[in-house]
Amino acid sequence: MPAPDTRHRLLATAARLFHEQGYEATGVSTILRESGVNSGSLYHVFENKEALLRGVLVHYLSELDAQVTGPAAARTEDPLERVFALMGDYRQGLELTGCTMGCPIGNLALELSDSHPQVRELIHANFENWLDVVSGWLVDAGPRLPADVDRRGLARFVLATLEGGIMQARASGSFTPFDESIAHLRRYFELLQELAVQTPAVRTPAVRTPTVRTPTARTPTARTRGN
Amino acid sequence: MPAPDTRHRLLATAARLFHEQGYEATGVSTILRESGVNSGSLYHVFENKEALLRGVLVHYLSELDAQVTGPAAARTEDPLERVFALMGDYRQGLELTGCTMGCPIGNLALELSDSHPQVRELIHANFENWLDVVSGWLVDAGPRLPADVDRRGLARFVLATLEGGIMQARASGSFTPFDESIAHLRRYFELLQELAVQTPAVRTPAVRTPTVRTPTARTPTARTRGN
Repeated sequence: MPAPDTRHRLLATAARLFHEQGYEATGVSTILRESGVNSGSLYHVFENKEALLRGVLVHYLSELDAQVTGPAAARTEDPLERVFALMGDYRQGLELTGCTMGCPIGNLALELSDSHPQVRELIHANFENWLDVVSGWLVDAGPRLPADVDRRGLARFVLATLEGGIMQARASGSFTPFDESIAHLRRYFELLQELAVQTPAVRTPAVRTPTVRTPTARTPTARTRGN
Repeated sequence: MPAPDTRHRLLATAARLFHEQGYEATGVSTILRESGVNSGSLYHVFENKEALLRGVLVHYLSELDAQVTGPAAARTEDPLERVFALMGDYRQGLELTGCTMGCPIGNLALELSDSHPQVRELIHANFENWLDVVSGWLVDAGPRLPADVDRRGLARFVLATLEGGIMQARASGSFTPFDESIAHLRRYFELLQELAVQTPAVRTPAVRTPTVRTPTARTPTARTRGN
């Protein structure tokens, strides 16, 4: 039987290596060496390398609040500023790594979506999990945004800006494309807020729309599917 | 001596395979088999697999106008509509592939930026080449956009939206995230145009700013560096 923390060590090591160098470029032997786990124990816990990756993606689902969205939410009560606090955290990630590594989910999305259907589903679940939280903040902004702005669609636009900004920062080795993209996103939010003030008659009620799934409703489904 | 079209066949085959399945996942033997070129001829033309990839990226630089931006520009004289015609072409690419494959440059940016410095430079050159054209269209829009909007920064925001929208479309297997992201980009452009009408006193002159490099100034530099 593997040691009790074998699963945790494998997940932590694999997550770091997949983030640093991608899935295909990461050999099982490197995962074993860096985690201090032997081959028999790995295959006792995970069927193969892809199952280990799915384990990593399920782990990311459960860590979103603690590692990603929670810290941003804790810094401000203003729901729209929470969006930009979160963008600031991703920038700090680029600072700490010298514009490398980027978003672990985004990297896997481009590397594996076409070739690994079960992995794609879990990548999608991670994006949806993130969108649940961010669109929740946009719902919380209530009449500060125009009534006709679908909050989940706007959250997807935020995610697109973020991922595309990170991509360009990594390709250029510079923060400029990221900063410029986030600056335009902020300007768009300001213009939407001005629009909401100009047309208060059609203000949206500050309630969540039925299309917004909560993380608790989403996460177990994805876990069941993925692991 | 390799046959005269060996180089072209290698570049076309490698470009297709790298786009379909990524750089690391593509074996040299597959490139040889699909191109009908033998190993000796490959290494006569390209030093190694990475040199072949650099050749592909230099080829993309020279093909931007013919394959990517030219067709969009030919469909409308309106410089701002050219931006959205180009977005429509990328959507058509997603339609033809069933939301797979995505942007060949974006894929390579996330896969190789950290580990292959010379490749990263050529990926960056491809993004800059694209930004030259799109920011040129935004400059051509003159006073229709507010004077304080830097046209190259706005072009980077367009590229971020595009790449992030493609990423989410591939992860979800659906056009929705792409369409929603582009719809918000269009709304932002509309709001910027309304703003420009409201504050005509600070209209920008319809001239190109010195920071915008032309494709002709950029492409030879990148070619020299990469090949």
